[in-house]
Amino acid sequence: MRDLWLIGIGTGNPDHLTRAGERALREASCILVPRKGTEKSDLAELRHHILRAVGATATVAEFDMPVRDESLPYHERVRRWHDDIAGLWRAAAAGAKGPVAMLVWGDPALYDSTLRIAERFDPAPRLRVIPGITALQALTAAHAIPFNTVNGSVLVTTGRQLRDHGWPEGADTVAVMLDGECSFRGVDPHGVWIWWGAFLGMENEVLVSGPLGEAGNRIVEARREARAAHGWLMDTYLMRRVE
Amino acid sequence: MRDLWLIGIGTGNPDHLTRAGERALREASCILVPRKGTEKSDLAELRHHILRAVGATATVAEFDMPVRDESLPYHERVRRWHDDIAGLWRAAAAGAKGPVAMLVWGDPALYDSTLRIAERFDPAPRLRVIPGITALQALTAAHAIPFNTVNGSVLVTTGRQLRDHGWPEGADTVAVMLDGECSFRGVDPHGVWIWWGAFLGMENEVLVSGPLGEAGNRIVEARREARAAHGWLMDTYLMRRVE
Ligand SMILES: C[S@@+](CC[C@H](N)C(=O)[O-])C[C@H]1O[C@@H](n2cnc3c(N)ncnc32)[C@H](O)[C@@H]1O
Ligand SMILES: C[S@@+](CC[C@H](N)C(=O)[O-])C[C@H]1O[C@@H](n2cnc3c(N)ncnc32)[C@H](O)[C@@H]1O
Repeated sequence: MRDLWLIGIGTGNPDHLTRAGERALREASCILVPRKGTEKSDLAELRHHILRAVGATATVAEFDMPVRDESLPYHERVRRWHDDIAGLWRAAAAGAKGPVAMLVWGDPALYDSTLRIAERFDPAPRLRVIPGITALQALTAAHAIPFNTVNGSVLVTTGRQLRDHGWPEGADTVAVMLDGECSFRGVDPHGVWIWWGAFLGMENEVLVSGPLGEAGNRIVEARREARAAHGWLMDTYLMRRVE
Repeated sequence: MRDLWLIGIGTGNPDHLTRAGERALREASCILVPRKGTEKSDLAELRHHILRAVGATATVAEFDMPVRDESLPYHERVRRWHDDIAGLWRAAAAGAKGPVAMLVWGDPALYDSTLRIAERFDPAPRLRVIPGITALQALTAAHAIPFNTVNGSVLVTTGRQLRDHGWPEGADTVAVMLDGECSFRGVDPHGVWIWWGAFLGMENEVLVSGPLGEAGNRIVEARREARAAHGWLMDTYLMRRVE
């Protein structure tokens, strides 16, 4: 594996793909597709749809994501898991004569382990990263809102960090990903507005916004409904102090 | 102007454009292009290049960006300026029979005034925002680095905010835009790594990275050289506490 390309594909809308991403998919000689991944199997089909849409002619090498060894301590568990995934990539790409491409949800830089897995290879492949539209961009676009206030700062964080550290001084906007627990409920709602979205960019997209105090409850309800309807859920939100 | 589309075009590489952006440019009936804008005139040609590349057939309506009245206090100045721009859009789009599209540098949500200008119209047009690759995504892709640490937070901020408020607790990564003053020099370099880029995604792309203590000087030098060579500069960077 001399060339490894990590291609951001956006967050569920095939039209999120960039011209650079399309071209790379057409030029790759082998494309790795996880059969079951961090996202649900509904999404496996999306990847094949994208490959058809751009007319990719590469070998498509599917692989099953390994399971994590839950008996290990967290960091060791993740490290081993990344090693296992790297091994599977190598096996799946064996025999590839040219660049190997990996489809990455959203942008490969944002809360994604692909770059860390790619570092596991020895000798190191030439790495090329092609940015993709993130869930946060799909969120602000769907609500037609700015990410930041004029000259203001934004904290991009996770549900866990928000619970553990609260809203930091100096940021008037907080954007939250990877939150399975409606952690916005721990935030003082006074003067705070929230914009929330699930399945952003996809057919099932759901949007809720409003003052945190009352919209918070509608979000809890919308999450419950979406999960009941689809069996799973992917969501993210942005909160802003609006004086 | 019943339909106004804000189309993110990425940060200088025509291949940043998404399939959604391409399609919208082909479907628009009038495309507004600022003749001189917040970016330098080198970039006006890029917009025309993009329109040719996607085969846009819309009327292209150029307009000159108004000048700001520097005698006014800051907020009033910006408000008036946005009003003036909105007026120019309206005039440039007069007679458009269908959707009016505006090309926006990077993503329309990130440190950009287009959404705020679009709010100035009365009656309000139907607004559609199409996300685009940001300078921060071009930065992390060029350096092949993650935006965040595992489960960590990132503060997205401006040079001014960094100078005024320093590095916030709770974020191990800080991403800085709109910094004309090398504000990283005010950060304690101990244990901090920096990844910097200018003209990201473009022909003149320059990258520097390393421990802040020594890379900082190389960046000051690289900025000086790039500015001398091109007459202007567009740059951004990410800093991370390592170990
Ligand atoms: C492992 S992270 C991957 C993020 C991805 N690399 C990106 O750039 O958006 C998964 C998190 O992204 C968010 N997410 C991804 N896709 C989404 C979508 N279509 N709608 C809402 N949230 C989404 C959710 O917060 C989810 O917990
Ligand atoms: C007014 S903001 C617009 C940002 C844009 N909306 C985006 O999504 O990237 C301009 C700032 O973006 C950054 N920037 C934009 N394009 C860039 C490029 N090609 N290379 C480096 N920095 C860039 C610089 O920090 C610059 O000061």
